[in-house]
Amino acid sequence: MTPKGFLFSAVHAGIKKGNFEDIGIIVSNPPALAGAVFTRNRFKAAPLLLSMKNIKSKRHHAIICNSACANAATGRQGMKDAAVTAKHLANHLNCEEKEILINSTGVIGENLPMKKVIRAIPKLAGSLSASPDGFCKAIMTTDTKPKSAYKKISIGNKKVTIWGCAKGSGMIHPNMATMLGFILTDAVISKKLLQSVLKDAVDETFNTITVDGDTSTNDTVILLANGEAKNAPIKKDTSAWRKFGDALEEVCQSLAEQIVMDGEGATRMARITVEKAESKKEAKTVARAVAGSLLVKTALNGGDPNWGRILCAVGYSGVPINTDRVKLYFGKHAAFSKGLPVKNVEKKLATEMKKKSVEIRLSLGRGSAVASYLFCDISSAYVAINAHYRT
Amino acid sequence: MTPKGFLFSAVHAGIKKGNFEDIGIIVSNPPALAGAVFTRNRFKAAPLLLSMKNIKSKRHHAIICNSACANAATGRQGMKDAAVTAKHLANHLNCEEKEILINSTGVIGENLPMKKVIRAIPKLAGSLSASPDGFCKAIMTTDTKPKSAYKKISIGNKKVTIWGCAKGSGMIHPNMATMLGFILTDAVISKKLLQSVLKDAVDETFNTITVDGDTSTNDTVILLANGEAKNAPIKKDTSAWRKFGDALEEVCQSLAEQIVMDGEGATRMARITVEKAESKKEAKTVARAVAGSLLVKTALNGGDPNWGRILCAVGYSGVPINTDRVKLYFGKHAAFSKGLPVKNVEKKLATEMKKKSVEIRLSLGRGSAVASYLFCDISSAYVAINAHYRT
Repeated sequence: MTPKGFLFSAVHAGIKKGNFEDIGIIVSNPPALAGAVFTRNRFKAAPLLLSMKNIKSKRHHAIICNSACANAATGRQGMKDAAVTAKHLANHLNCEEKEILINSTGVIGENLPMKKVIRAIPKLAGSLSASPDGFCKAIMTTDTKPKSAYKKISIGNKKVTIWGCAKGSGMIHPNMATMLGFILTDAVISKKLLQSVLKDAVDETFNTITVDGDTSTNDTVILLANGEAKNAPIKKDTSAWRKFGDALEEVCQSLAEQIVMDGEGATRMARITVEKAESKKEAKTVARAVAGSLLVKTALNGGDPNWGRILCAVGYSGVPINTDRVKLYFGKHAAFSKGLPVKNVEKKLATEMKKKSVEIRLSLGRGSAVASYLFCDISSAYVAINAHYRT
Repeated sequence: MTPKGFLFSAVHAGIKKGNFEDIGIIVSNPPALAGAVFTRNRFKAAPLLLSMKNIKSKRHHAIICNSACANAATGRQGMKDAAVTAKHLANHLNCEEKEILINSTGVIGENLPMKKVIRAIPKLAGSLSASPDGFCKAIMTTDTKPKSAYKKISIGNKKVTIWGCAKGSGMIHPNMATMLGFILTDAVISKKLLQSVLKDAVDETFNTITVDGDTSTNDTVILLANGEAKNAPIKKDTSAWRKFGDALEEVCQSLAEQIVMDGEGATRMARITVEKAESKKEAKTVARAVAGSLLVKTALNGGDPNWGRILCAVGYSGVPINTDRVKLYFGKHAAFSKGLPVKNVEKKLATEMKKKSVEIRLSLGRGSAVASYLFCDISSAYVAINAHYRT
């Protein structure tokens, strides 16, 4: 399933309690071109700051990621620890420090246990294999399961593979979620185009999901392309470019959905699609207000088609809607139309809202733009997980 | 405690299940001048739309309010029901329909049971008394207790009283909360000045609290002044004006705090004060991001001084802070300073965070503006209440 030329390893360094993998690497051989999207949070974790610098390098040998410690809000020591980690790995892989991309996820404000990290690095470099399973587990925090997805396409007469893995469960919200995503491909594509297709795919997928509305300090999506598929280089505005972009979006979308479904304490997922908006931006604004409403999320938890709360969120989204033009559907059943509730549909709406995956559709009657957001319910379990995260 | 010239009554009309008061009136004799602040939600409930029209009247005889039905998203029928209610009450009080201010709170999308409402009106008009207790109960929805506050001041040699009551527990967020507030005073003051002092007081109090981030369709604060204190008219920019404004803000602040403390499922309250911001607006933006973070609210529930989540919220607030200048305190104990966590304070921070009322202070090091926000924790009980609100 993984593209040609990528190897993986993961070990238990002792950062996480219990005997779980807590640090892993992905190595590309030959070195890959890289694109990346980073959190817009002003508090950026040390490894993220280092990766933002290193991403400018013309080639990358490896990604390293640990869980259980975010190395965020750790000042100069944090920056030093990130650099030392990258340097040690670079030495073991016989490459330059700037060719390593480094990531951390976990508790904010604690320093990396560097002795443990340094001890783990030779083990990581010495146990590389084609199986990504250990790596996918090593990056998990409150995730209950590893998340990966892939897509194979043909470009010319060459098979190209796009594979990705991700972590994320709480602190999930656009721009970006507390999430890390690592996407690998063997396609031949320029660094510039890689960055632009990644940005587009992230905007349409990871940036349209929400668990709890909190954007983290460490969020990163990295895309590596090592060219091992030997396809003719993908050029902008060609059918190969569209095919590659669609496949990348499909992989990202699958990972995004897996994150939402594994939202902390989540029991149910919903997609709010806003139609007939004046602009895509407007549609997104309304969809985000609905997906972000705690009252909508708790109604989803109870399987209650409380459409009043959805309209309420639409009403405070800031978009100057005409309430008489708004139509709201659960599945194919209208709940609200022309300023009034639809009668005798309560049972049908409840059936829709009790599904594992709920479809909510809202028409604004203002234009033709569409956007959707994916979100999960907020349950008592979410509260329990987050009230005692550090204890 | 209540000002001169105001009478109250409340009855069980049968809108709410159980034998609780669910509709009440406040009558001013002589008629009062009125100011009001209404929700900015685009979906405005019928009674609110009617009150927005009636508020233009030069004098007001009464306020009527029911609970258990918001009369929101009810279209033309809802507008008719609100008007019929006002008309019936006006007939019984021998005044004009436009001199009535009408309010509803409760479930969205259901019509008012008009037979019950009409049957209740003569009972309300016939059982007026000086006690506001029944009225304070009649406006409650998920509130666990009635909320009122008052302040007496002297203007010249006259005693002036400001008294208010409020409801609100869930769907609480600025501009405005799912809240209703009715403030009464016997002061002599012009309608224009009444509106401006109310607006100022609401901005500093009700608009700086948050329970769950949802702004409702029915939020209203009304201020009636009937002049029965016979003071010399309060003029702008005088000491009497400042005194009256301060007292009004004190009453509103007390009601706002009561609402937060009675937040659905709340076990703990916190105030986030943002200092050294470049502007008041900037301070409010940062304070709102912290107060609105579900991760901060759940940490508060667990009594966990998880300052990383607070910094994280500061970081995504949109204000271009320099993270090295940010200082964060719990009570008087610094948790984060100059880009680093403060060492060996975890126990002290935990003691602060486990208090019934937590003080969090954040210094941005950008200027001299200050603003604060009041919020409560989100508990498993909140989720339970809102997952099954309609069942």
